[in-house]
Amino acid sequence: MTDSIINEVKYDEQSLVPAVVQDSRTGEVLMVAFMNAESLAKTVETGETWFWSRSRRALWHKGEISGNTQRVTSIEIDCDGDTLLVKVEPRGPACHTGEQTCFFRLLHSPRK
Amino acid sequence: MTDSIINEVKYDEQSLVPAVVQDSRTGEVLMVAFMNAESLAKTVETGETWFWSRSRRALWHKGEISGNTQRVTSIEIDCDGDTLLVKVEPRGPACHTGEQTCFFRLLHSPRK
Repeated sequence: MTDSIINEVKYDEQSLVPAVVQDSRTGEVLMVAFMNAESLAKTVETGETWFWSRSRRALWHKGEISGNTQRVTSIEIDCDGDTLLVKVEPRGPACHTGEQTCFFRLLHSPRK
Repeated sequence: MTDSIINEVKYDEQSLVPAVVQDSRTGEVLMVAFMNAESLAKTVETGETWFWSRSRRALWHKGEISGNTQRVTSIEIDCDGDTLLVKVEPRGPACHTGEQTCFFRLLHSPRK
């Protein structure tokens, strides 16, 4: 990990940073979850995604129970340092519903 | 807009919902910004992205000054209703730095 850049991660008041998870092969956005410094460090260390579960107030190794882990191919940080983009190769569906992505419900599509 | 689904948007304590903006042609994730109910309504109404600027505490029509507007091609909502995925055709760079995407800084890439 590039130390100079890791220091630029800006955590919010709850010490969290949102992470957009994207399938590196298809480009599909799979989910958005939160990381704290510890989950980011574990993600880098293990090469699989770890998040902070706000509801359970616990570290969460994605796929630990379901088997649907995500192998990290890169982590990017945005211009102002307060959001991460984590590209992964998923081993199964990202969503707890069994859908490939958590974004499977269309809210709006403009008329052509 | 599908009324039954728009009612499922879960805003946070600050009445905001994060929106991931993705280029519908390339799949590139361009930026993450926040919407409130008014900016979501204006996005649907105008077909271009509007956000809520937390720093300026004001509605923000993306590209109003720079000309780099984003034409909306779809809006999806995630499984638990607390994040939006907005697919767009961008008219120019998404980032204020002039980069195509706000995610242009590599934080980590595993050794092969």
